[in-house]
Amino acid sequence: MQEILNEIAEFMSENTDRGKVADYIPELATINPNQFGISVALPNGQVFSAGCAQQLFSIQSISKVFSLTLALGKIGDRVWTKVGREPSGDPFNSIVQLEHEHGKPRNPFINAGAIAIVDAIMMGHEPKESLAEILQFVRYIANDDSVGIDEKVAMSELASGHRNSSLAHFMASFNRIEHQIDKLLGVYYHQCSISMSCEQLAKSGLFLVSDGVNQSTGSRVVSSHRARRINSLMMMCGHYDGSGEFAFRVGLPGKSGVGGGILAIAPGKASIAVWSPGLDKIGNSKLGTLALEMLVQRTGWSVF
Amino acid sequence: MQEILNEIAEFMSENTDRGKVADYIPELATINPNQFGISVALPNGQVFSAGCAQQLFSIQSISKVFSLTLALGKIGDRVWTKVGREPSGDPFNSIVQLEHEHGKPRNPFINAGAIAIVDAIMMGHEPKESLAEILQFVRYIANDDSVGIDEKVAMSELASGHRNSSLAHFMASFNRIEHQIDKLLGVYYHQCSISMSCEQLAKSGLFLVSDGVNQSTGSRVVSSHRARRINSLMMMCGHYDGSGEFAFRVGLPGKSGVGGGILAIAPGKASIAVWSPGLDKIGNSKLGTLALEMLVQRTGWSVF
Amino acid sequence: MQEILNEIAEFMSENTDRGKVADYIPELATINPNQFGISVALPNGQVFSAGCAQQLFSIQSISKVFSLTLALGKIGDRVWTKVGREPSGDPFNSIVQLEHEHGKPRNPFINAGAIAIVDAIMMGHEPKESLAEILQFVRYIANDDSVGIDEKVAMSELASGHRNSSLAHFMASFNRIEHQIDKLLGVYYHQCSISMSCEQLAKSGLFLVSDGVNQSTGSRVVSSHRARRINSLMMMCGHYDGSGEFAFRVGLPGKSGVGGGILAIAPGKASIAVWSPGLDKIGNSKLGTLALEMLVQRTGWSVF
Amino acid sequence: MQEILNEIAEFMSENTDRGKVADYIPELATINPNQFGISVALPNGQVFSAGCAQQLFSIQSISKVFSLTLALGKIGDRVWTKVGREPSGDPFNSIVQLEHEHGKPRNPFINAGAIAIVDAIMMGHEPKESLAEILQFVRYIANDDSVGIDEKVAMSELASGHRNSSLAHFMASFNRIEHQIDKLLGVYYHQCSISMSCEQLAKSGLFLVSDGVNQSTGSRVVSSHRARRINSLMMMCGHYDGSGEFAFRVGLPGKSGVGGGILAIAPGKASIAVWSPGLDKIGNSKLGTLALEMLVQRTGWSVF
Repeated sequence: MQEILNEIAEFMSENTDRGKVADYIPELATINPNQFGISVALPNGQVFSAGCAQQLFSIQSISKVFSLTLALGKIGDRVWTKVGREPSGDPFNSIVQLEHEHGKPRNPFINAGAIAIVDAIMMGHEPKESLAEILQFVRYIANDDSVGIDEKVAMSELASGHRNSSLAHFMASFNRIEHQIDKLLGVYYHQCSISMSCEQLAKSGLFLVSDGVNQSTGSRVVSSHRARRINSLMMMCGHYDGSGEFAFRVGLPGKSGVGGGILAIAPGKASIAVWSPGLDKIGNSKLGTLALEMLVQRTGWSVF
Repeated sequence: MQEILNEIAEFMSENTDRGKVADYIPELATINPNQFGISVALPNGQVFSAGCAQQLFSIQSISKVFSLTLALGKIGDRVWTKVGREPSGDPFNSIVQLEHEHGKPRNPFINAGAIAIVDAIMMGHEPKESLAEILQFVRYIANDDSVGIDEKVAMSELASGHRNSSLAHFMASFNRIEHQIDKLLGVYYHQCSISMSCEQLAKSGLFLVSDGVNQSTGSRVVSSHRARRINSLMMMCGHYDGSGEFAFRVGLPGKSGVGGGILAIAPGKASIAVWSPGLDKIGNSKLGTLALEMLVQRTGWSVF
Repeated sequence: MQEILNEIAEFMSENTDRGKVADYIPELATINPNQFGISVALPNGQVFSAGCAQQLFSIQSISKVFSLTLALGKIGDRVWTKVGREPSGDPFNSIVQLEHEHGKPRNPFINAGAIAIVDAIMMGHEPKESLAEILQFVRYIANDDSVGIDEKVAMSELASGHRNSSLAHFMASFNRIEHQIDKLLGVYYHQCSISMSCEQLAKSGLFLVSDGVNQSTGSRVVSSHRARRINSLMMMCGHYDGSGEFAFRVGLPGKSGVGGGILAIAPGKASIAVWSPGLDKIGNSKLGTLALEMLVQRTGWSVF
Repeated sequence: MQEILNEIAEFMSENTDRGKVADYIPELATINPNQFGISVALPNGQVFSAGCAQQLFSIQSISKVFSLTLALGKIGDRVWTKVGREPSGDPFNSIVQLEHEHGKPRNPFINAGAIAIVDAIMMGHEPKESLAEILQFVRYIANDDSVGIDEKVAMSELASGHRNSSLAHFMASFNRIEHQIDKLLGVYYHQCSISMSCEQLAKSGLFLVSDGVNQSTGSRVVSSHRARRINSLMMMCGHYDGSGEFAFRVGLPGKSGVGGGILAIAPGKASIAVWSPGLDKIGNSKLGTLALEMLVQRTGWSVF
């Protein structure tokens, strides 16, 4: 495994077609695109890494997997009254679908859906408390209390977040939002600004490898049933309108973030985190996707 | 003329199919639907009225004609870089078109367009000043300093305005808005909450009857060219996705508001204001439209 | 009047920004773009012309005004169960709106609507008979039995008409079409291929100038009521998604065709036909629109 | 395994909430909804069945998996210049997406995409030859020469196929179709009218279970790479806008048809065919989906 990862990391270090760093969040636009990291966590607790796998990066939308998991724990299947579970066929921040479906987001991984999930998690609490709960949950599944939030990124998102404000107000106009928009978005932006390294991220996905149990720590995070369903949602909707392409090329459930990270799950086998800040046109890490494609070719881990 | 108006008012008083009062703005939902007023102002200064034509009502979207006129006076044809001039084919608060056209509203009379017009009027000023300017302008064209704003309605709109917040943030996400959203919407809601009677409203439309000059006062409000263009916009876009229907039945440029008012212009002949709070499905005054249809049949004032 | 037209024609002859000849119908793509004609027909029978006003051209979508008039005569207001009367906000051949509104075209002037109107006219007859009826009607209102069809254009359209076939089958899938698609489209393409000169076209519009009566011949074509409504539809929907722009610049009801012709009606005053084959981006004659704008500026004929 | 299938079949026989038989194809509307069959084919050649698993039914859209496989064999990855590989987020016969994406279908499993695939297969041949080729291929992968076409169903589809004609003409208007529409649709409708039993269908899916090789016959149908990609497309797009729901509940790649059949693949484990004619609102077999959900719960075959 270590050898495979070394090869991949070396291949990536020489690759000049790295995509374009996200520029709509000013703080992310300054990241050096010439970075690449990969980590593979096995159920037995082993972690293999290559490249800058200890480097912290903004997990962005990957956090939506964790908040969905948390929301399912808190309100169970009532989550599905708030968001659907179909791929959207639209970009991550599209509002067209929302209008056609009366303010109900297609799935929990487009921006509108993730905002609705945060609304479900808050349950009347103040932003600080909700955020603490989310962060604590991420630290728990990563088994690492050092996971934190990059306040500068959160501030940067707040300042450039008209589109998300629009989505939130739009849902609110259908009475689908229970909290004040600015508080809700405050939590949302902070959640997206959680910083993790590839190693931390790979470890945090272990509960999805083994039917809801992180076997390296022995803790059950969700039921087997629910773990599989979260994986199915990652497969179907984890890469916006590039989800079909990712399934086609990689064949694993995965979730990307505009920070350049991707978390992918090979059920029964491994949790994999890759990071490279350059994005393709749809907003998914270009080298990250390529690295996963190479890894799966060599390991045969595709679920198909 | 007086006879015709009396007949119409009497016919309306017996009509039981009055439509439904707008309920999405709580303060408007409490209006008694059994009211009807009509006023016809002639270029020579004569005003004929019937029904409760002195009763104040919330002019709502009719104010968009006045703010467009003011904006054209302030920044001229640069207005058309901010809004288009095509009918939208969509409901007044649709966001789909905005997404397809990169945040540029189709015309100045849908909500998004009217918000963009207010943004153009403000020019860096504080809400209070901008609002004062708009109110002063309306008093000037109505030749009546008693015109005011119903603060309760404005507050009611603010409290229920998630859709408009969504539209404003959406445009802002395309860098199309120069002012703070809450300040901008504050002005917008107050502008919509201007209260006028049918008589006041009919008189305020006189400048559009005679190529930009209010002949009863002698003041030129806009150039001949511009007056005709404002009329064309009222014809094409004045009744949301019911504009074709209004042109078909009434045949005059007109602008409706969800408060139940309609201002219609018979070029060269008269400015007409009707009011009845019950709306049709699209959001235009049901009896108001009917009254205009009857008036035009008897006077032959259709432009076609 | 003759002087004004001469001036306009001269101005146009020197204008080099003439737009682009329609190229999706092969037979139309070969037309020389350096042509311009204009005719103004007055209710008293006088006709003023300038440029190549006797040159025949393909009237294309202008024919939709005549087929709508014929359909209203044959089945009356049942026409409105088949097509709506709102501007579409979409290009002339869009199918999106059809899907959203269950196969009912927005208005009789977009392609789908015009096809539905032909379906209404046919009433079970064979294409030849229906076509003869349409042609006879156009000759009648033009008061000119020499009006004919350009068979080469009709064949050219048939051969390149996948989009219209798609629209027709789409409506048929909602059970909105009564005739065989190929027969229906045969009639439609031949109707669009009627050839007329500016003089013939201007004369054919006279019944819309004087409330349904062609005063030069004394024949009543439609009721006053209906004539005004046809004008309102031309105003609202006569130039596809450039209808707002035409109303704004010209201020008259009008209908354009991709052959480069425009028929415009100044109610009570004149019927005007212009022709210049170069089109703007939306598909309306570039110089034709400009000529009408100039004419209206000099005559004050805008309805606004 | 036999026991599980018996249990499932018994449970289904008592289930009264069976959905609604497809009625837009007249010949399918007459099928008795009280039928249910299931077959599980293992790589070693064993087949387990319960219910009416020998009963022939119309495989309809399931045939799209086979024609895609055939097209990939014939023109390789050029297939992807003709169709995309993203879920559509729209119903199976939507035309809206086609307009937004210039006539290129989102994936090979919506109707437009499947028609484009047939266009790719034909390569200038006559319908009869192309159809023979498709049928021969299906017989080959099913290892059963008795597989045939239900001519009555094919005729019934032809007669009611305005929507598909519309889709085909629409693509043709973007120059995306190489063959005559009526010939192309003739092949398409016959392909959809292939009749198979659950047993035949389950056996025909075996090549997708074992990386492209039907291990029971030893024949390699496609490369390992391609087999996995076909599975990924079935997962992402196999159930129209219910694909997310199917992945969520069943967790296997699958393809449904409006005849009530579903083919599902458990990679490395089994090929499964279920059939029950009653459909849910989206057009997927109601009891078929439920049966697969039960089977996967008991076998743990979900890929997640």
